[in-house]
Amino acid sequence: MTCVGTTKSSSESTGNVAADQLRLFIERVERLEEEKRGIADDIKDVYGEAKSTGYDTKVMKEIVKRRRMEGHALREFEGLLETYQCALGME
Amino acid sequence: MTCVGTTKSSSESTGNVAADQLRLFIERVERLEEEKRGIADDIKDVYGEAKSTGYDTKVMKEIVKRRRMEGHALREFEGLLETYQCALGME
Repeated sequence: MTCVGTTKSSSESTGNVAADQLRLFIERVERLEEEKRGIADDIKDVYGEAKSTGYDTKVMKEIVKRRRMEGHALREFEGLLETYQCALGME
Repeated sequence: MTCVGTTKSSSESTGNVAADQLRLFIERVERLEEEKRGIADDIKDVYGEAKSTGYDTKVMKEIVKRRRMEGHALREFEGLLETYQCALGME
């Protein structure tokens, strides 16, 4: 790949403001993505701990999802869930 | 829904250890999920800032993805990408 009008590092050129700016944006995203992965790992750890205590994590995830819903949204969700299950002969 | 063998709050019963324990696990997950959403918002903000500076965020996301790959994985990805594009007459 030939990089026209860019340099590999900022030290190679003092005029390459755009590349440095782009690099800063990318590095900010990368740091935040790293943090987000760390938290995702922490969540996995909590579920792992709950599982080893005897809880079903699939059900826990469903609970977390339902607790995030507003009252009316939850009632609508539960109503439609029942309707669809009936329609598909699932109960 | 009838809750057999459980109480709605820990104050209603002192013997309901399991429900309290479950609640603690759920609340820990919820706090972490909240944190994760905060970081996801921060990432969106960085992309928004980059976009308003003139950068294409779709390309930036591709760059972030490729920078996370190990050297050999990146080469394999780029090679296969070209192969598939050729196979599909995309170049």
